[in-house]
Amino acid sequence: MTNQSKRKTLLAALGGNALIRSGQAGTAEEQFENLRVPLSQIADLSREYNIIITHGNGPQVGNLLLQQECCDAVPRLPLEILVAQTQGQIGYMIESTLDSELMKLGIDSTPLVTLITYVVCDQSDPAFKNPSKPIGPVFTETEASALPYPTKETSKGRRRVVVSPEPVTIVEKLEIKKLIGTGFIVICCGGGGIPVIREERAFSGVDAVIDKDLVSAKLCEEVDVDIFVIASDVTHVALDYGTPDQINLDRLTVADAERYLKEDRFPAGSMGPKVEAAVRFIKTCRDKRAVITSIEHIADAVRDDFGTQFVAT
Amino acid sequence: MTNQSKRKTLLAALGGNALIRSGQAGTAEEQFENLRVPLSQIADLSREYNIIITHGNGPQVGNLLLQQECCDAVPRLPLEILVAQTQGQIGYMIESTLDSELMKLGIDSTPLVTLITYVVCDQSDPAFKNPSKPIGPVFTETEASALPYPTKETSKGRRRVVVSPEPVTIVEKLEIKKLIGTGFIVICCGGGGIPVIREERAFSGVDAVIDKDLVSAKLCEEVDVDIFVIASDVTHVALDYGTPDQINLDRLTVADAERYLKEDRFPAGSMGPKVEAAVRFIKTCRDKRAVITSIEHIADAVRDDFGTQFVAT
Repeated sequence: MTNQSKRKTLLAALGGNALIRSGQAGTAEEQFENLRVPLSQIADLSREYNIIITHGNGPQVGNLLLQQECCDAVPRLPLEILVAQTQGQIGYMIESTLDSELMKLGIDSTPLVTLITYVVCDQSDPAFKNPSKPIGPVFTETEASALPYPTKETSKGRRRVVVSPEPVTIVEKLEIKKLIGTGFIVICCGGGGIPVIREERAFSGVDAVIDKDLVSAKLCEEVDVDIFVIASDVTHVALDYGTPDQINLDRLTVADAERYLKEDRFPAGSMGPKVEAAVRFIKTCRDKRAVITSIEHIADAVRDDFGTQFVAT
Repeated sequence: MTNQSKRKTLLAALGGNALIRSGQAGTAEEQFENLRVPLSQIADLSREYNIIITHGNGPQVGNLLLQQECCDAVPRLPLEILVAQTQGQIGYMIESTLDSELMKLGIDSTPLVTLITYVVCDQSDPAFKNPSKPIGPVFTETEASALPYPTKETSKGRRRVVVSPEPVTIVEKLEIKKLIGTGFIVICCGGGGIPVIREERAFSGVDAVIDKDLVSAKLCEEVDVDIFVIASDVTHVALDYGTPDQINLDRLTVADAERYLKEDRFPAGSMGPKVEAAVRFIKTCRDKRAVITSIEHIADAVRDDFGTQFVAT
């Protein structure tokens, strides 16, 4: 095995479409099949780079919430435990698919681990006063009024909204660094991590969801990642996305990206946090790389500068 | 940090009652509170031993199955993925509780990880022809006849039965050994591990449940555990359990245990596999220790030979 401490480290943050494509119901078969697209590329990249994989969990946690609503016979579990369940589920699906992609390439000695990860947030974060992130199923007004938690009208209909605080630190950062340093491929921070707050010397879970791209940016900073790839459903960050005037951006300086963010040029629930995450990493670690592209182009983005590359200046 | 490679390694296999006590509904609060009993002892034992924790998932996977049955809007997931979900859920609950118990003792530098674990079983295992392990909710005869899988009349009523094959090997054994060797406390093999079969060079999940004590025994053998503690709801293995003639056993030789197993002196669904697991480990690793006791007496069993201690001869 080569000396991992001398290799560069790549973090790939996989969006929800790595698992469930638009229009799919989300069967296990569909999710396993979809995962081959990013993971075959990541398996190949693991020859050159130390690898960390993070992932979203929107549809999966939504399904668990929906099942809880349907079933009175089982005690409802708090959101942080549902996030933990999706870390197990998706972690297993990623790990076993990656395992098989590595074997196809004849790479059979790389150890893989999926870590249950929790992320500290700050109880004084103003987000706790304003639940804003929609999750789970759509309710009628009558159903919503009987629910024990806040809901909000969204583009899809009335949905539960939860607190989405800033990530302060990843609890397992030292473990992750140690694992990477000894040659492990690490799958972690699923669904943005299990959100916890510090209470005296211990942690306790909170009913919240942390943005998975912002958590990934924090992890990049905390474990010295060299290349941060945010992979979702579009090849490039674009201005005027979806209009005849759409402009795909190949390169984005921190200053330009911050200006566009301030001008609300990117959709709040989707591209906004991704650009924010890339900017935060490059602002803190100016000599590192961040790129946003589609799950089909992860290897192109790393090797051939495809997608939208973020630069300090 | 002391040199872990010179310390003895302890594996504690926690039974379902470590999380949900008899008569409880199984809320998150109850499960966190119950876990303090075994984990405060394990936190203290971690000063002397390398620690591996495995655990059951019966009630938790049963609840997920029940929720799936209630909810037509969400695609049903195969059993192996539900096991993965419970590994995330319970792993998080164990890890965060253990974290807080370690901190209470002023032990704050020990790294903890929860690993998603899969376990290989053999498709030619005769168990695949005879689904026998009851899991999940109770159905009426009419409901059962409409189900797409086999059911069986049990002491609780008609329930789904699944295949319960022998564990062949733990996929992450090298990872676990490496982590233990570098000082990690490892939580793994939840619910008996995610059952997979080898297909050419890759793995694929199967609809089965592997016994968590038998998997734990296999792991003890594969990662050189020195002391194997099986913790459940009774202080000792007993003959004529629950009768006026009950005899608690302090010490059990492999030969005696095998004879009692052959004579069906232990209940098949509960104490039988635990005794079988202890015997398998001591038969293979004759100079090591195995003990069965209650979750209240883990430390006593390790330090003062409490419970039923298994010996080679």
